[in-house]
Amino acid sequence: SDVKKIAVLPGDGIGPEVMNVAVRVLDRVAQKHGLKFEKEFADVGGIAIDNHGKPLPDSTLELCKASDAILFGSVGGPKWESLPPEQQPERGALLPLRKIFGLYANLRPAIIFPALTGASTLKEECISGGLDILIVRELTGGIYFGQPKGREEQPERKAFDTLVYSESEIVRIAKVAFAAAMKRGKKLCSIDKANVLTTSVLWREVVLEVAKDYPEVELSHMYVDNAAMQLVRNPKQFDVILADNMFGDILSDEAAMLTGSLGMLPSASIAESAFGLYEPSGGSAPDIAGQGIANPIAQILCVAMMLKYSFGLNEASEDIERAVKTALDNNFRTGDIYSAGTIKANTTEMGKQIIDSI
Amino acid sequence: SDVKKIAVLPGDGIGPEVMNVAVRVLDRVAQKHGLKFEKEFADVGGIAIDNHGKPLPDSTLELCKASDAILFGSVGGPKWESLPPEQQPERGALLPLRKIFGLYANLRPAIIFPALTGASTLKEECISGGLDILIVRELTGGIYFGQPKGREEQPERKAFDTLVYSESEIVRIAKVAFAAAMKRGKKLCSIDKANVLTTSVLWREVVLEVAKDYPEVELSHMYVDNAAMQLVRNPKQFDVILADNMFGDILSDEAAMLTGSLGMLPSASIAESAFGLYEPSGGSAPDIAGQGIANPIAQILCVAMMLKYSFGLNEASEDIERAVKTALDNNFRTGDIYSAGTIKANTTEMGKQIIDSI
Ligand SMILES: CC(C)[C@H](C(=O)O)[C@@H](O)C(=O)O
Ligand SMILES: CC(C)[C@H](C(=O)O)[C@@H](O)C(=O)O
Repeated sequence: SDVKKIAVLPGDGIGPEVMNVAVRVLDRVAQKHGLKFEKEFADVGGIAIDNHGKPLPDSTLELCKASDAILFGSVGGPKWESLPPEQQPERGALLPLRKIFGLYANLRPAIIFPALTGASTLKEECISGGLDILIVRELTGGIYFGQPKGREEQPERKAFDTLVYSESEIVRIAKVAFAAAMKRGKKLCSIDKANVLTTSVLWREVVLEVAKDYPEVELSHMYVDNAAMQLVRNPKQFDVILADNMFGDILSDEAAMLTGSLGMLPSASIAESAFGLYEPSGGSAPDIAGQGIANPIAQILCVAMMLKYSFGLNEASEDIERAVKTALDNNFRTGDIYSAGTIKANTTEMGKQIIDSI
Repeated sequence: SDVKKIAVLPGDGIGPEVMNVAVRVLDRVAQKHGLKFEKEFADVGGIAIDNHGKPLPDSTLELCKASDAILFGSVGGPKWESLPPEQQPERGALLPLRKIFGLYANLRPAIIFPALTGASTLKEECISGGLDILIVRELTGGIYFGQPKGREEQPERKAFDTLVYSESEIVRIAKVAFAAAMKRGKKLCSIDKANVLTTSVLWREVVLEVAKDYPEVELSHMYVDNAAMQLVRNPKQFDVILADNMFGDILSDEAAMLTGSLGMLPSASIAESAFGLYEPSGGSAPDIAGQGIANPIAQILCVAMMLKYSFGLNEASEDIERAVKTALDNNFRTGDIYSAGTIKANTTEMGKQIIDSI
């Protein structure tokens, strides 16, 4: 049908507050463009543990299956931190969702908004003119899901995990990265540890093969340890970064923090079908939850990514991005990005600024 | 015997130049303290491939076995870059040396020398008052050496690596980290990915057990992705960082680059017997090799680490550290750390400054 159904999962901490604003942005953009969305809310993460006994209740999963996209808030908090790892909100909700829906392509932009260059811990000269990196992370394979995983108790304790990649897993994520590079600066840096890992040797081999279909993209390869250095030394050398699940986890967080704009960064986790999960890169920020002061921009930009990647509604998506830019250009700032001379806004006020300029 | 034997392996690129100076520093300190060292030189890395057909020739290995420590330069360069991974200079020399000699404890200081705070890409306010992190990396286990490692070709290509840790491997490296913390700021942050990896769950469990013997050390645990962020956000929160082989590889390079003093950082890889390999953290810098302008300080501080960790000669070791500090305080700088108002020195001149103040 024409009506897209969205599973809205606000989660914990600041999740509900910022989701509230993001949904109003969605409503506004729908009204403007004459679009119809059906939104249905459900519990996920810590609140789902409290209400249903597990971080991803069956009812929530059913809703997701009946939907065209998942708009995800953030999960976790001190209350659930001492649970066994696999029952914790973040891991217990996200890992199954990724696997069940085949969300193999994680797109994580690491952008410094021109209005916010001061927020980075890097010196001005390293990031002058802004920073705009897209990290493409493989999300359903590698050491996260590889079997066998296990543990022995005798003669001494011993534990093991398996890092495994097949050709087809590498091909499909590499294609996503090359296609993204074509739409951007046409530079792709593929990360591996081919001097140590057998999987990395295959990774590099397959990426080189896929590269033949994208002759315009300038491809380079970098060891993960060097990449962790180069991001700090000269992040502007990167356009698109392609990495496996674990290396992508580490490097995307490093890159996101480098921007100093963690409260501003959305992420998309997409399946072959264009079904996707959209989630802010930052956490649930329990320290400021409930105060109405959280930055809603990451969550709002998740809506923009959803419109673009899952629904192909590029104009509506760009309308949101433009409105965010306008609010920042008009000097509105939530506390996390506030600096002298700008106008301090709470979550609702920032939302209003953005909604009003759509 | 009283005479310690040192295998000196200068390697490639700037290795021979800086080693030349480091050995003269060793001679000077030996003379001053009435110590005797027997030094024997051998090929390693690219030059060993050229001269003997492999990066770690049997003759070099025999020399190492007959020695009390290895003073290692740096290896690698464009000439050998297209060899298969396992034959390349770095990997082909270092990995076997680590395994054969059981060099399980890799100590990598990430220090900002007070004279050099300007060299970091981080803003002054993030590193004011200096930075002094010690990374303790497990070096002979984990995914680097875990079996099985391999590859299948049918029905499609597929490759796998195994991440494995036993209790005893974790215990011994944790002890090194706690002992180091006791001699420093008494803070230890253990890195893992216990929300995803079975090995990390065991890692955390065993580290907690070892902690009981070090009640004075304040222990924390951090996921590797968060650690990659926190190093950028606020590196001064760290004193000692403990990590497995792969996470330690990534984080130690990130931390080293944060200091902006890569040409200044030594590293030690130590066995249970106190036998050790001492190696600069930076690379072979082929771009400036042969020009006599490389910074010899990392290599010189490797001598200091060797005297301390393998030979227990703390006074002689501190003499070298003091002399390095004096040369910097007197404003001598090689090109990599030069800034206006300081005195530019080449490799030999910097060496002379250091030697003369021992
Ligand atoms: C919660 C955790 C399992 C997850 C991951 O490691 O993938 C998180 O760090 C992320 O990056 O989304
Ligand atoms: C050369 C390579 C195998 C090595 C490693 O990954 O351990 C290097 O990066 C290091 O850190 O010493």
